[in-house]
Amino acid sequence: MRTEIGEQPAVVARLATGDPERYREVCAAARASGAAFVLYVARGTSDNAAVYGQYLASVRAGLPSGLVLPSATTLYHADLDLRRCLVIGISQSGETPDVAESLADARSRGAFTVAITNDARSPLAQAADFALPTEAGVERAVAATKTYTSQLAVLALLWASWSNDRALVAALREEVPQAMAGGLEVEPQVSMLAGELASADRLLVVARGYNLATGLETALKVQETAAVAALPYSAADLMHGPIAMLAPGLPVLCFAPAGATQANLLEVTLVLRDRGARVVLIAPEAAAERVGAVPLASPAVSQPPAISWIPIAEVPEAVSPLVAIIPGQLLACRLAIARGRDPDRPAGLTKVTHTR
Amino acid sequence: MRTEIGEQPAVVARLATGDPERYREVCAAARASGAAFVLYVARGTSDNAAVYGQYLASVRAGLPSGLVLPSATTLYHADLDLRRCLVIGISQSGETPDVAESLADARSRGAFTVAITNDARSPLAQAADFALPTEAGVERAVAATKTYTSQLAVLALLWASWSNDRALVAALREEVPQAMAGGLEVEPQVSMLAGELASADRLLVVARGYNLATGLETALKVQETAAVAALPYSAADLMHGPIAMLAPGLPVLCFAPAGATQANLLEVTLVLRDRGARVVLIAPEAAAERVGAVPLASPAVSQPPAISWIPIAEVPEAVSPLVAIIPGQLLACRLAIARGRDPDRPAGLTKVTHTR
Repeated sequence: MRTEIGEQPAVVARLATGDPERYREVCAAARASGAAFVLYVARGTSDNAAVYGQYLASVRAGLPSGLVLPSATTLYHADLDLRRCLVIGISQSGETPDVAESLADARSRGAFTVAITNDARSPLAQAADFALPTEAGVERAVAATKTYTSQLAVLALLWASWSNDRALVAALREEVPQAMAGGLEVEPQVSMLAGELASADRLLVVARGYNLATGLETALKVQETAAVAALPYSAADLMHGPIAMLAPGLPVLCFAPAGATQANLLEVTLVLRDRGARVVLIAPEAAAERVGAVPLASPAVSQPPAISWIPIAEVPEAVSPLVAIIPGQLLACRLAIARGRDPDRPAGLTKVTHTR
Repeated sequence: MRTEIGEQPAVVARLATGDPERYREVCAAARASGAAFVLYVARGTSDNAAVYGQYLASVRAGLPSGLVLPSATTLYHADLDLRRCLVIGISQSGETPDVAESLADARSRGAFTVAITNDARSPLAQAADFALPTEAGVERAVAATKTYTSQLAVLALLWASWSNDRALVAALREEVPQAMAGGLEVEPQVSMLAGELASADRLLVVARGYNLATGLETALKVQETAAVAALPYSAADLMHGPIAMLAPGLPVLCFAPAGATQANLLEVTLVLRDRGARVVLIAPEAAAERVGAVPLASPAVSQPPAISWIPIAEVPEAVSPLVAIIPGQLLACRLAIARGRDPDRPAGLTKVTHTR
């Protein structure tokens, strides 16, 4: 797992320097099909990538979007009219039966279909009108890391192509891989945090907007590798109820990359601190300064207790989930080790899941 | 909270015996607008009702559907083309600013808009083309219960009207209120379970399909009233990773009402039992028999430990979430009391949340 976390900057750089022609081709064909709505179909980690894809489709391309619940097709046999839909299936292996079946079904119902998968010969790729391979190389760890960020990169490249946004592609070529590589350097601080949290049974993860995916994926990784009950929330949903769970000292990770959602996240960060939570802010330096967050190494002397800070580099918000997830993945890995678990062999999991 | 849980059968019966004309009118106007895609916008408990609404739209009306993430509008100012969309805003108070704003914005972008709210004069109702009041009466407890089931009932009536399904409306008039009232009688067993779980810090909740909403809502209620880290999963997503969290004795609630998803749920229930989880099955009698589940009162003597059973009545699957949620609500209430908390006053929550 740790090795594959380290491979991510190169995987993303390689995808971003690849031939842009296939993305143009997909966009042209999807437009020609009259697609006016976007639906994603995915499970697990890929479903978190789909949440990111939902924001990209809506915010960058103006297309309303949703997440398909595969059982609507596989169990309820819904008679969907998908003639004006672009349906994007996402799966690392491309072998999850309910995702591949849902995509094949969508295609037969008039949708224009795209597969994003690490195996260009998989059932998912074969079910789609177009396949966009994630080219991450074989992923050996059960917990997906490099295939997740490669899915994010392919989604960003797809929607950048749709809106002809060359600046975003340029950012994915250099700025983002550099920021991801820089993110690997926070490992000593993350290890310190993992040691502190080793005996914690639960953890909240808060994020919003593009990075809602980062919060969901960090929580899922922590659940599956470290067996900690990590609960992910949008900052807005947290305030609608679950904040009642807050107990003094409860650890909360807040992701606050630069962008439209940052002010809201920092506001929530302060509320959580004032209520006695053990807040760890993952944000660029300017944001950390704004709420008085201090590097994790510093002893907490202030009252109320200071917010701890894990730095990430500032990149355009639309691609920040590729950078912000790095400390989340490192924490899952380190927390597993701190709790005496092997992050490469989560209990009772296999790499391909055969749900229907 | 407990009083309002008890009011639910009457609230649902009243809604179902109301004038069907307004539903016909909404459906006719939505069809006339050319709506081909359904989007829900909601937060918290209402968002769980929207998950149910998503299945109804897709399975019963063949309309692809999604959940709007309000920040796409309120924070990112997405330039969405919503001309062929039916956008349904759901909010108990109708005052949550981001939900009302998202609906008003959707209407200005060409969507046909419907508000489902308990206050027909609220900003949400005023922002919509049509308002469908939930008529649940004033809800005093912070934790929404009767407004949740009234939202489910309005959604079921709306989509039954769309597909001209009189049998479903008839079920909502008598069969469902009776089954809900019957569900209140499991309180002694739920209290026993609450006593057993009082010291548990976490809990998994598993469901699928129409009842994914039941799992999400049970987990949310348990989080906000009892401050237990309740993690909700679709049965399929659970197998994709979080099952690695399973530890011997970890309590898992499985909702398995009769219908297309039941076989899958029972299969997962057995896997969880074999891995040593403390499984509580909420299901009709026939399903309980199939997996050897025993009433909660019986001492567990078998090896592997038996699955405990909390009974619910069998009703058509499309309306089963109205019945299945009752034990979930009762558990949240009883678990709060067992943990020394006041279910009517969750820490740090207010009835209307002002997120943007």
